[in-house]
Amino acid sequence: MATAMPDWSRAILRPSSVALIGASDDASKTAGRPLQYLRAAGYEGKVYPINPRRNEVLGEKAWTSLSDLPEVPEHAFILTGTNAAIEAVAECGTRGVKVATILASGFSEAGAIGAERETRLREIARRTGIRLIGPSSLGVVNLHDGMTLTANAAFAEGNLPRGSIFVASHSGSMIGALLSRGKARGIGFSGLVSVGNEIDLSLGDICAATLDDDQVGSYMLFLESLNHADALRRFALAAHERGKPVLAYKLGRSSEAAELATSHTGALAGDDDIAEAFLRECGIARIETLDGFLEALPLLGRTPILPPGAKPRVGVVTTTGGGAAMVVDQLGVRGVSVAGPSESLVAGLAGAGAPVEPARIVDLTLAGTRPEVMKSALGTMLASGEYDLVVAVVGSSARNHPDLAVAPILEVARANSPLAVFIVPDAPQALDMLARHDVPGFRTPESCADAIRAAFARDTPVARSLRISAAESEPIDEQEAYELCDRIGVARGATAILRVGEPRPALPFAFPVVAKVLSRDIAHKSDVGGVALGLRDVDALDEAARRIRDDVRQHLPDADASRILVQPMERGIGEALIGYRVDPQVGPVVIVAAGGVTTEIYKDRALRLAPVTIETARAMIAEVKGFATLRGFRGKARGDLEALALTLVKFSRIGETEPRVMEAEINPILVRREGEGVVAVDALARLSRP
Amino acid sequence: MATAMPDWSRAILRPSSVALIGASDDASKTAGRPLQYLRAAGYEGKVYPINPRRNEVLGEKAWTSLSDLPEVPEHAFILTGTNAAIEAVAECGTRGVKVATILASGFSEAGAIGAERETRLREIARRTGIRLIGPSSLGVVNLHDGMTLTANAAFAEGNLPRGSIFVASHSGSMIGALLSRGKARGIGFSGLVSVGNEIDLSLGDICAATLDDDQVGSYMLFLESLNHADALRRFALAAHERGKPVLAYKLGRSSEAAELATSHTGALAGDDDIAEAFLRECGIARIETLDGFLEALPLLGRTPILPPGAKPRVGVVTTTGGGAAMVVDQLGVRGVSVAGPSESLVAGLAGAGAPVEPARIVDLTLAGTRPEVMKSALGTMLASGEYDLVVAVVGSSARNHPDLAVAPILEVARANSPLAVFIVPDAPQALDMLARHDVPGFRTPESCADAIRAAFARDTPVARSLRISAAESEPIDEQEAYELCDRIGVARGATAILRVGEPRPALPFAFPVVAKVLSRDIAHKSDVGGVALGLRDVDALDEAARRIRDDVRQHLPDADASRILVQPMERGIGEALIGYRVDPQVGPVVIVAAGGVTTEIYKDRALRLAPVTIETARAMIAEVKGFATLRGFRGKARGDLEALALTLVKFSRIGETEPRVMEAEINPILVRREGEGVVAVDALARLSRP
Repeated sequence: MATAMPDWSRAILRPSSVALIGASDDASKTAGRPLQYLRAAGYEGKVYPINPRRNEVLGEKAWTSLSDLPEVPEHAFILTGTNAAIEAVAECGTRGVKVATILASGFSEAGAIGAERETRLREIARRTGIRLIGPSSLGVVNLHDGMTLTANAAFAEGNLPRGSIFVASHSGSMIGALLSRGKARGIGFSGLVSVGNEIDLSLGDICAATLDDDQVGSYMLFLESLNHADALRRFALAAHERGKPVLAYKLGRSSEAAELATSHTGALAGDDDIAEAFLRECGIARIETLDGFLEALPLLGRTPILPPGAKPRVGVVTTTGGGAAMVVDQLGVRGVSVAGPSESLVAGLAGAGAPVEPARIVDLTLAGTRPEVMKSALGTMLASGEYDLVVAVVGSSARNHPDLAVAPILEVARANSPLAVFIVPDAPQALDMLARHDVPGFRTPESCADAIRAAFARDTPVARSLRISAAESEPIDEQEAYELCDRIGVARGATAILRVGEPRPALPFAFPVVAKVLSRDIAHKSDVGGVALGLRDVDALDEAARRIRDDVRQHLPDADASRILVQPMERGIGEALIGYRVDPQVGPVVIVAAGGVTTEIYKDRALRLAPVTIETARAMIAEVKGFATLRGFRGKARGDLEALALTLVKFSRIGETEPRVMEAEINPILVRREGEGVVAVDALARLSRP
Repeated sequence: MATAMPDWSRAILRPSSVALIGASDDASKTAGRPLQYLRAAGYEGKVYPINPRRNEVLGEKAWTSLSDLPEVPEHAFILTGTNAAIEAVAECGTRGVKVATILASGFSEAGAIGAERETRLREIARRTGIRLIGPSSLGVVNLHDGMTLTANAAFAEGNLPRGSIFVASHSGSMIGALLSRGKARGIGFSGLVSVGNEIDLSLGDICAATLDDDQVGSYMLFLESLNHADALRRFALAAHERGKPVLAYKLGRSSEAAELATSHTGALAGDDDIAEAFLRECGIARIETLDGFLEALPLLGRTPILPPGAKPRVGVVTTTGGGAAMVVDQLGVRGVSVAGPSESLVAGLAGAGAPVEPARIVDLTLAGTRPEVMKSALGTMLASGEYDLVVAVVGSSARNHPDLAVAPILEVARANSPLAVFIVPDAPQALDMLARHDVPGFRTPESCADAIRAAFARDTPVARSLRISAAESEPIDEQEAYELCDRIGVARGATAILRVGEPRPALPFAFPVVAKVLSRDIAHKSDVGGVALGLRDVDALDEAARRIRDDVRQHLPDADASRILVQPMERGIGEALIGYRVDPQVGPVVIVAAGGVTTEIYKDRALRLAPVTIETARAMIAEVKGFATLRGFRGKARGDLEALALTLVKFSRIGETEPRVMEAEINPILVRREGEGVVAVDALARLSRP
């Protein structure tokens, strides 16, 4: 641990002494576990069991209270019930314990009384400087030091798998499940932490405390939420600087998008999309399979982070056709195409003793599946510069002769060679050998393809200071929203405002026009009869204005419906929706979609954290399938998607000059032919209350 | 094996004698393997190695030729090169060998010369009655009899895992991979076959030959194509009748849809969609994960086949929150919702000693994760009638105390109880116990969710005789296609035909009208200027007719563009595309989509084998997301989707009365308001040449 780290940081995983407050004499009880585990794991620091009702627990001297101890322990694991835990934290704080980990539940998940308990804990921490892990934490483990300060029953086993992965989890039970699954797979851990409710130290804070630990080489995060996103981002950025990859499994892939307030942007930007965008921007690979979670880390250090929108060039070499086809299929399902070797690479392979048919897969079946053929082929492919990643698929030899099958791969695999191995039969020895050499090996085609997709879905992490305002917001009207557009340089249709029953001003544009009710109170104008299109002359306009006022009043008796916004009928060859929102967890996000009902029906949109660069804006537009109609679909004219990208960039920067904007949306923005620009023809926004 | 089965059928897996033609004396050679494997596995039948150049192979007497043997062997495994193999088959046929399995390659995959070799093999089979497996077959295995007639190196191991699953695979290497993976997972096999090129006995034929074998309880099919779909269907139907579930892993999930001839139906109905529809209709569950392939079979016998369109009611009970959330998430991603217990079931659970909070998941964490609580909760849920399937998620106890954790599940699991178990930690013993009791256990949330989705995506299999014509087809014109519609009772717009430059007939409908070029030669009329909409009077019509003729001639100088089809402007509140096509592999299929460009962009369509029932037609329409706009989306009027379903049924039956129809499409068919029907406003078809 670097000396620059704060004092408490070392005390989390490398305490010289620990107290077990509320340690039980009953070995089968949860509160009896940590002492047994610490002893079994050979922890060399001091351990002080504290139990006011006993002199001895599990055959060891027990202390009555913290004040009886011969020293102030660095880290206390508080195993008592909820109320006693608060008292224990207070005493730990007063006496100078650096870190307390709290097992008890009954805090934020327990309603008002729980929230009050949390407030008391926070107050103690602020007053005394003690740092807290939990509550509802199953503990903290440093496997290299035998510091198994945990009540998770998985640590009752001997032979805990040591390695370089640090696990941080919102779920306490998962640290045990990952430990056992890693052990079975030859994958070891430096430490694991169950972060609980994160009332003080968040998951990101705890991981950050391990960044300069040489025994920690990479990170696995099991996430249930993105609370404390700011700390997570700071940690991810620092991990990236140190070349320590971070992999996350996040629950919530299928949760229904929260139906949010005023704009479509809210409903479209479901929580999971935001999490996806956030993790991508933090350079954290998000995995979707449990096997991939355990297997993918060695791949991350070997795969380049590509520029926004770039497609990875993935090659496959195999000794077995069926097995390779499974991987290619699974990659295809996840949007990753496999590229065959170029003509010159085919020639190079032949020259290297690995003659193959020109095809999408480099199939060594005909060349002979001998180890030296795989070695030549894989080496030639890696050296060719044609691939961002080469996947070697190994058949039955991996089971029957693991040494012979794996050796040629290990020989060509330099520390950073971009390669992955999928092994078709059950072959634990071969997988184990790969794991020991930090070469990414996969036991299913799904985990292999999932890991590859995840590795290439990362962006280079960027620093942003999180601008989140919990302030209440209020709507502005369409004209005001257009003025926002003007200030940030987004083209929009001309407007004139008239009041029903008052003299009509001269229109600064020609007929036909569109008339819309202008009111802060009305977000969805069409739904209340608030829009009239294609008005050809002044009579039609006057008539429409009156009808709009009457219709809107019928729907919304309390709304002000007397002002009418008049605009020329603008034309485009297609349309888009762009939106901006300050998310309460991750800050500003920006979204682009093709607009219209299909956007909602097919959930076809791209989302990123704001602001975005022009490259990212282009990549976002490329992700939206619905824009196919503007990309020269079936010989149609191309739309000005470059202008749309520029507008998206401007819109994504809205918070820089208009910090009160909490939410803004243009829907639709018309897209004209290539070179002719885009124009906003409807807009809405909400500002924080001053 | 039932006596009703043909003689060759027993000879596949239960021969009393086998010949190894071309057996090698070199133990490391492919042709040296079968003899070693048969001896190691303890096969009790006669084994006759045949090698014209040796008196002995691998320490056993070798015979010079088939004619030297003391008896005619029942099954010959031909291990020679390609040309020698053909001669060997001829001799086997002549001498009365019942079945020959051919290892050699160099047949259909080797171009014209290979095709000619295949023809010779087929001719021998027809002449002599010998049945053939392969060529390119790695062999056939019956594990119960030690009949390891294979060259797959995976069978070199001892302790081959016996069980009740029969594996049939297009990929020879996969039988070895599945064997080893099954062994590692406590899953056993009755037999395995590598079917090779299927020039005589197809995968379906071989599986059918094992149907009455009591040692075969279920089937795993590894499919690379749907060649011989008819035999596969016959087998699947018979397997269903015997209560023997069939599970398939089919490659090609991500292949690009083949861009086919005239209609959109071709391009939309990609090969994989057709495979999906075919397998579903055969009652075969299609799995997408490799782990699920090994784990799902016990689930299939326990899950009901639901009526078309019905959503499964799936419940989850857990001793660990994080683990259950992973399964719920993965189910959600696959479109399967998890349903919480009803109020009365919550009360029932409390009464049974398993009090839980009303929530989507029955979480036993608070009730205490003791075995008897899981037993009560699971038993109560299964008995409630509220679920088509209950998933039990088991945490760390499955690893630490597998007996205690699994026992309560086994106690409530009757033979057909609809339940599945996901085990969160690495717990091979617990999984093994479940497998031994034929209770579906899953080691990843993905395989668990995948198996559940697959189990509920089956339909009750139906018999159909495959009507496939390889005949060439030719287009008919739009008027002729409408007459087809008339004959099958599909509503279509009125028509009149005029010839440019000839006297215009009186129109039997009012203006405005639409004019379209009428020609068998032109499928995509709009692309060649062949359509004019909204013509308000006779002058506009005459003018449009001339312009159409001229424009079309410019695009297609050779096409007959003198006839013009005139129709009234029909209106609907939405549109659809319906298509019919005789697929060369599986026969007639029918497709429905929302039409328009989004259908192509989002691949949003439903496909089934034709004909379909009204229930299936409704389920298909419910699958198409784009029809949301006709289902009362955002308060809009509902469309007459029932009329669309009825039309889809009629269209799907087109082949019954119009057997020459190879392909037909209505695009669009306008959908009017509920109760007002649908009307075809464009149609095309291709008929087989007489």
